[in-house]
Amino acid sequence: MLLILNKNADNKEISIIKGKINKLGLEVNEIKELNYHILGLIGDVSKLDPGIFEAYKAIDKVIFVQEPYKKANRLLHPNNTEIKVNNEIIGGNKINIIAGPCSVENQKQILSIADDVKKYGAKFLRGGAFKPRTSPYSFQGLKLEGLELLKLAKQYTGLPIVTELTSLDFLDEYVDSVDIIQVGARNMQNYEMLKQLGKINKPILLKRGPSSTVEELLMSAEYILLGGNENVILCERGIRTFESYTRNTLDLSAIPVIKKLSHLPVIVDPSHATGRWWMVEPMALASIAAGADGLIIEVHNDPENALCDGNQSIKPDKLKQLMEKLKLIAKAVGRDI
Amino acid sequence: MLLILNKNADNKEISIIKGKINKLGLEVNEIKELNYHILGLIGDVSKLDPGIFEAYKAIDKVIFVQEPYKKANRLLHPNNTEIKVNNEIIGGNKINIIAGPCSVENQKQILSIADDVKKYGAKFLRGGAFKPRTSPYSFQGLKLEGLELLKLAKQYTGLPIVTELTSLDFLDEYVDSVDIIQVGARNMQNYEMLKQLGKINKPILLKRGPSSTVEELLMSAEYILLGGNENVILCERGIRTFESYTRNTLDLSAIPVIKKLSHLPVIVDPSHATGRWWMVEPMALASIAAGADGLIIEVHNDPENALCDGNQSIKPDKLKQLMEKLKLIAKAVGRDI
Amino acid sequence: MLLILNKNADNKEISIIKGKINKLGLEVNEIKELNYHILGLIGDVSKLDPGIFEAYKAIDKVIFVQEPYKKANRLLHPNNTEIKVNNEIIGGNKINIIAGPCSVENQKQILSIADDVKKYGAKFLRGGAFKPRTSPYSFQGLKLEGLELLKLAKQYTGLPIVTELTSLDFLDEYVDSVDIIQVGARNMQNYEMLKQLGKINKPILLKRGPSSTVEELLMSAEYILLGGNENVILCERGIRTFESYTRNTLDLSAIPVIKKLSHLPVIVDPSHATGRWWMVEPMALASIAAGADGLIIEVHNDPENALCDGNQSIKPDKLKQLMEKLKLIAKAVGRDI
Amino acid sequence: MLLILNKNADNKEISIIKGKINKLGLEVNEIKELNYHILGLIGDVSKLDPGIFEAYKAIDKVIFVQEPYKKANRLLHPNNTEIKVNNEIIGGNKINIIAGPCSVENQKQILSIADDVKKYGAKFLRGGAFKPRTSPYSFQGLKLEGLELLKLAKQYTGLPIVTELTSLDFLDEYVDSVDIIQVGARNMQNYEMLKQLGKINKPILLKRGPSSTVEELLMSAEYILLGGNENVILCERGIRTFESYTRNTLDLSAIPVIKKLSHLPVIVDPSHATGRWWMVEPMALASIAAGADGLIIEVHNDPENALCDGNQSIKPDKLKQLMEKLKLIAKAVGRDI
Repeated sequence: MLLILNKNADNKEISIIKGKINKLGLEVNEIKELNYHILGLIGDVSKLDPGIFEAYKAIDKVIFVQEPYKKANRLLHPNNTEIKVNNEIIGGNKINIIAGPCSVENQKQILSIADDVKKYGAKFLRGGAFKPRTSPYSFQGLKLEGLELLKLAKQYTGLPIVTELTSLDFLDEYVDSVDIIQVGARNMQNYEMLKQLGKINKPILLKRGPSSTVEELLMSAEYILLGGNENVILCERGIRTFESYTRNTLDLSAIPVIKKLSHLPVIVDPSHATGRWWMVEPMALASIAAGADGLIIEVHNDPENALCDGNQSIKPDKLKQLMEKLKLIAKAVGRDI
Repeated sequence: MLLILNKNADNKEISIIKGKINKLGLEVNEIKELNYHILGLIGDVSKLDPGIFEAYKAIDKVIFVQEPYKKANRLLHPNNTEIKVNNEIIGGNKINIIAGPCSVENQKQILSIADDVKKYGAKFLRGGAFKPRTSPYSFQGLKLEGLELLKLAKQYTGLPIVTELTSLDFLDEYVDSVDIIQVGARNMQNYEMLKQLGKINKPILLKRGPSSTVEELLMSAEYILLGGNENVILCERGIRTFESYTRNTLDLSAIPVIKKLSHLPVIVDPSHATGRWWMVEPMALASIAAGADGLIIEVHNDPENALCDGNQSIKPDKLKQLMEKLKLIAKAVGRDI
Repeated sequence: MLLILNKNADNKEISIIKGKINKLGLEVNEIKELNYHILGLIGDVSKLDPGIFEAYKAIDKVIFVQEPYKKANRLLHPNNTEIKVNNEIIGGNKINIIAGPCSVENQKQILSIADDVKKYGAKFLRGGAFKPRTSPYSFQGLKLEGLELLKLAKQYTGLPIVTELTSLDFLDEYVDSVDIIQVGARNMQNYEMLKQLGKINKPILLKRGPSSTVEELLMSAEYILLGGNENVILCERGIRTFESYTRNTLDLSAIPVIKKLSHLPVIVDPSHATGRWWMVEPMALASIAAGADGLIIEVHNDPENALCDGNQSIKPDKLKQLMEKLKLIAKAVGRDI
Repeated sequence: MLLILNKNADNKEISIIKGKINKLGLEVNEIKELNYHILGLIGDVSKLDPGIFEAYKAIDKVIFVQEPYKKANRLLHPNNTEIKVNNEIIGGNKINIIAGPCSVENQKQILSIADDVKKYGAKFLRGGAFKPRTSPYSFQGLKLEGLELLKLAKQYTGLPIVTELTSLDFLDEYVDSVDIIQVGARNMQNYEMLKQLGKINKPILLKRGPSSTVEELLMSAEYILLGGNENVILCERGIRTFESYTRNTLDLSAIPVIKKLSHLPVIVDPSHATGRWWMVEPMALASIAAGADGLIIEVHNDPENALCDGNQSIKPDKLKQLMEKLKLIAKAVGRDI
């Protein structure tokens, strides 16, 4: 950590800052030249609160030489993390497809979709039981009944299930029944939830918040990793920008950035990112070309009558076509599907 | 609600859509001209899920003639909501100042700051007990011990206390002890929390999420109001933009917009919005000039050694000066302080 | 065009608005129901100024049933526009690669790079002669001397040249020498320039401004098309968001959106979008997977000593590798390269 | 300037970088500790191209200890710049109001509005002659005829005139007739224009681009200042964000930031920022409370029939009321109007 001092910093102020550094068990390397005056901190700064020096008027800027995350950092963990879920591995050479409806609506719907997505090559079933919705007047999910239906679909198809946790009240049921617990974009910085998820031993699918930087996503992953749960899968699902044609702006650059900075697997949700079913295919293909480890895609057998997000759901036959194209793209980038 | 049909929509598709409208207990007004073909819905659409028609390929756009929030809407509630907390009213003619440290650090600190902010005219004491932090390595607050210290400060000064709830696990303690329960920006769309807060009878300070529109803020307020708790105070605290000099971009235009669309009181947090202590004064003055009902300001007796957000905290003597200027601005816009 | 009236609109106001509509030679279709009151315009509204009704207090919203662009609209021009430049076609089945240095620096540099990019499969040479730079202290390009060097490179290699026009003062020279005239992102809404470019018969490469929506990009294209020049190639090069790790956020969703809304070809600039050389490859692959018609890529033989944007330039041997991978991706989406 | 080296940087790479530094006539201060390895540059780096070191793989970050602008920097020019235009001073203690229609429409309109705004206290008349419009189908201004009408209005009222230059073709006419030449937001980074404006001796009103940071605004001012024209007035007019209720998001935090970083005067355009006439008053008051030196406000005698931006124009009687309130706010912050 480097403290760039203000040109007008006086000796008394600097001496107070040096005192604080020493109290933290660190040493100071002072560098003073015509154009700059710096205090470099020597010692283990890895767990220093980043804001700790920002209030001094004598300090112009605080420069972090190292990233603020440790456990999620590729520097300290050069190999890709591979996460085993039942018989599948996420983060290895094989691309994984998670597919299913936005929300579980009834037994017939979820069993039928589960059958279809399995038939066309998805290895995981997604489906919302508890649905966080912008409007209190929108369908809020079947809740625990939805969870039961997901379990039934798993029993019938063998597909591991992925569903979002919206309240810690149901953590136990999720740990018992769910194969990958999803943290939704709106809860990416719900730190109480992240801390609890760090204490369990289930894979967590952590979605990037629509206004979160990649660094913040990694800091949220750090909360889970630090708690002891190393099974974190990141998910890019679009960020909020001024462009209003799409629901969000899918930030595919985040894929190579995450791959460089971290060892964690990363998948893409083209359905929520775009909000339009006809954009799912091109964005799914682009995601794999950009290096993503998988996709989570909304599939519905009757989008016009879906209780949630029908506009961004593709029909099963569209998934079939997409899978054919994804195979070609995966091969082009040296991967299987 | 108006459904603008696609030019190529065929009769069969249109007939299916009309059937769905009728099944919802609504009637259809069909308007077909050279340049447009519209299905207008007749009947009570106020509780219709906004997404319900978006998946039809025959439909180009869904137009909402009315805002999606009802309880928060000024149309249905023309007078300003005034919220009584102890002896103060928020949302009336009088401007209210909430002040105090980012986080409660120890007894001496909170009592000293509480004394100071009371002396200079603040009517409420803020202070973080549970602190949501981007980094797991940052100070996370004194938690319940912090809450006890806030209660002590209230006992000594008589100032009602405002503090953030980060987990429903402590809701009972908050209902017992806290005068205004704050929902932080990161939890603005934590709907499980909002639903629970709708069931209690405490004033809620709902902060706008950094990537939330004003409409979404009002929809989150709607969750609380719909539950039966009508004491919601909104708070603008900056939105996320590309400008990186400030921590966030304070969106003061949101003040007149909220005042037009809703009857709820709205205050501003210039400390979190700017992230820099020397910007608190001009932005506080501008907020009141723009029509805000109050301010929530971070004040610390020793910002350089604050355990959190020292960079954006002003010292008590600065608060004193600010209060003098605020009085002049309040008077200029016809209000008291 | 639909005018959604305010609930409180009185008859006098409405009658004034109807009068205005009639004066424009249009008829009115009035629709009044319990929940809405609408004036629908009947007649040719295609050239109506969009803002013309927005100031009436009686009008809540103005809804455009049709897109505001005509010439650029796929509805009126269903087939893809293919632009012939020398022996190449942009917008057809074949993917085109434009490559070269950010700025032309000297004869040896540009000839060497031109040779290399040709050898590895680029069909066009890019190179900046006039360089718009954020800082007046940065290298501003060799200007006309740079243009001469580009012509020389074309003479040696046969590659058509693409370079940015920054001032209409040099339009004649550009028309004489340049094969595709680039309008930079910062000039996307320099309408005086667009109008002049509409009068010539050269292909124009129109880059999307970093804060422009796709619709605004199409409106800028409309300026050129309306002038009579139908050879417009659009270019996505990243938009400005809060994410600061990358120079801009590449909006690949814009590719399918543009393909749906317009018949114009669209290419991607992964170099400017990301600002980092190691991200050029994954983003180039993703662009073609998403349906782009080509790429414009910065290539430099000595990035460390480049006078401009070395950080985002790849070396020629990296281009060679990239071309191999691009071939596989192009094939996967049914295209050639 | 500090070059933070990569942990894995090898001696050969570092030696090449040092060589480059020396070739630039600068010396190197090398600092190597456990946690960081830095090359500090010693000497005059003020005119170094910021990108010059970014392409080296051995370099992780380039830190600018000093701001990249010199002429616009308050450090080198501590006193406020005051710009004299006829008998008025912009940037002194007195707040200046510029008012008038979006575009000049005809003689009667401009003379009537000019009369009104003068009567109510505006000291400058604004009015568009050449209008940059998103749509080629929108009214493009009366052009030179509009300029003549502005001159006539000046002759009648004595008010200095402010109007936007959209093409250098008319620079001579503007230098002859216009008192303050406006550079529109879309041309903020039209560097060819800025360079020419640096060579004249007229005050320039430089509007912030909707996606430009404050630093970029100051860099654009630097182009003009470096050319020798020191009469630059900055203008905040809203930035582009995801919030779509307002036309742009007025960034009032930019006022204290600009005042800290630069000596140049700064005014605010609440009309373009909000796009809604009823928000002009609260945002105008807030602007002055935040420390702005003036306002530029759209005023129209018949907004419903304005040829441009009627929705954001206030009527003359509304300006009268606003001026009364502005006087109170100005007084509250120790200024006159």
